[in-house]
Amino acid sequence: MKHLREELWFKTPHRRDYVNITEQVEGLVRKSGVRNGLCLVNAMHITASVYINDAEQGLIEDYDDWLEKLAPHEPVSHYRHNRTGEDNGDAHLKRQIMGREVVVAITDGELDFGPWEQVYYAEFDGRRKKRVLVKIIGE
Amino acid sequence: MKHLREELWFKTPHRRDYVNITEQVEGLVRKSGVRNGLCLVNAMHITASVYINDAEQGLIEDYDDWLEKLAPHEPVSHYRHNRTGEDNGDAHLKRQIMGREVVVAITDGELDFGPWEQVYYAEFDGRRKKRVLVKIIGE
Amino acid sequence: MKHLREELWFKTPHRRDYVNITEQVEGLVRKSGVRNGLCLVNAMHITASVYINDAEQGLIEDYDDWLEKLAPHEPVSHYRHNRTGEDNGDAHLKRQIMGREVVVAITDGELDFGPWEQVYYAEFDGRRKKRVLVKIIGE
Repeated sequence: MKHLREELWFKTPHRRDYVNITEQVEGLVRKSGVRNGLCLVNAMHITASVYINDAEQGLIEDYDDWLEKLAPHEPVSHYRHNRTGEDNGDAHLKRQIMGREVVVAITDGELDFGPWEQVYYAEFDGRRKKRVLVKIIGE
Repeated sequence: MKHLREELWFKTPHRRDYVNITEQVEGLVRKSGVRNGLCLVNAMHITASVYINDAEQGLIEDYDDWLEKLAPHEPVSHYRHNRTGEDNGDAHLKRQIMGREVVVAITDGELDFGPWEQVYYAEFDGRRKKRVLVKIIGE
Repeated sequence: MKHLREELWFKTPHRRDYVNITEQVEGLVRKSGVRNGLCLVNAMHITASVYINDAEQGLIEDYDDWLEKLAPHEPVSHYRHNRTGEDNGDAHLKRQIMGREVVVAITDGELDFGPWEQVYYAEFDGRRKKRVLVKIIGE
């Protein structure tokens, strides 16, 4: 069994940002030499998500509006978590909607994707350095 | 390491449909010959989900009402994504609630399920051909 | 390829409870002898979740309030599923928000976690015996 482990680092400019990381993950699959296996991509921080959906700017803005409606940032006093001195209570909730991780099949040395699948890093409490883990196993 | 990769194809009759695919996935586990490993089942399209829950018609209708409340189809002009000419903005949101994929343990050659676990394909923008990927690895 | 399969059992005191199971999962990773691989942790029941987030009591109460707002327990007659004689329709919905499973990388014989990642069992219909499955594969 082959395996590869790498981190991707981000420091996004805004509190919330959506970064297409598909090419970086594809590069790691090639680097791993795995022809058939599984590729796990997960946020290592608990106020961010990794998800798969469309690389379409209108949709990304729809997601952002919708998440802000389901778990608004303001008033920060609404969240008990923010009594710890944080202001990111909403980010912990948004991340549960969008998910922590994706698991993608590797077939013939490539991410085995449908026509529109793209991997995104979704940041809900940015402007500081945070990481994504890529773990690949297979042969 | 053994591995198997197959696609399941669907063309559902309605915009939204919920299809129990447990038996098809079980058949692929047997075909793979894997005794211990992992089975990934994911929608290959970004307006559909694969999830695990109950094969109970009332619950499926509850899910459908709830998703329509959290991310209504109408008015289609509500979603920026629909400016691309699509009318499926809501489907991209509903899919994030229900999830893209499930990963199921394989033990002794079978899906290692609790008593009520059933695998569903949830379609949120149907009436056309779409696919699910099943990838099995193990030994 | 090595593999390990174990169940964790719970009987929580309340309808809804949130139990940190990180140490138990870490113990199983060590027991497996796997140095590099994947660890699947999933609820075996369809009214419970396994998720990864912060071990902070305020946040857990925020999650509980938010889930109750998105899918209220009362009135139980609101859910068609409850016509089967159950009163847990809401629990099936809450579980979809928080997720069925997590997949965690194993690197150098340990759960490959960011600084705040903790594994939780979230119970939405407790006060009876229920199970979580841990399946580890790798080498």
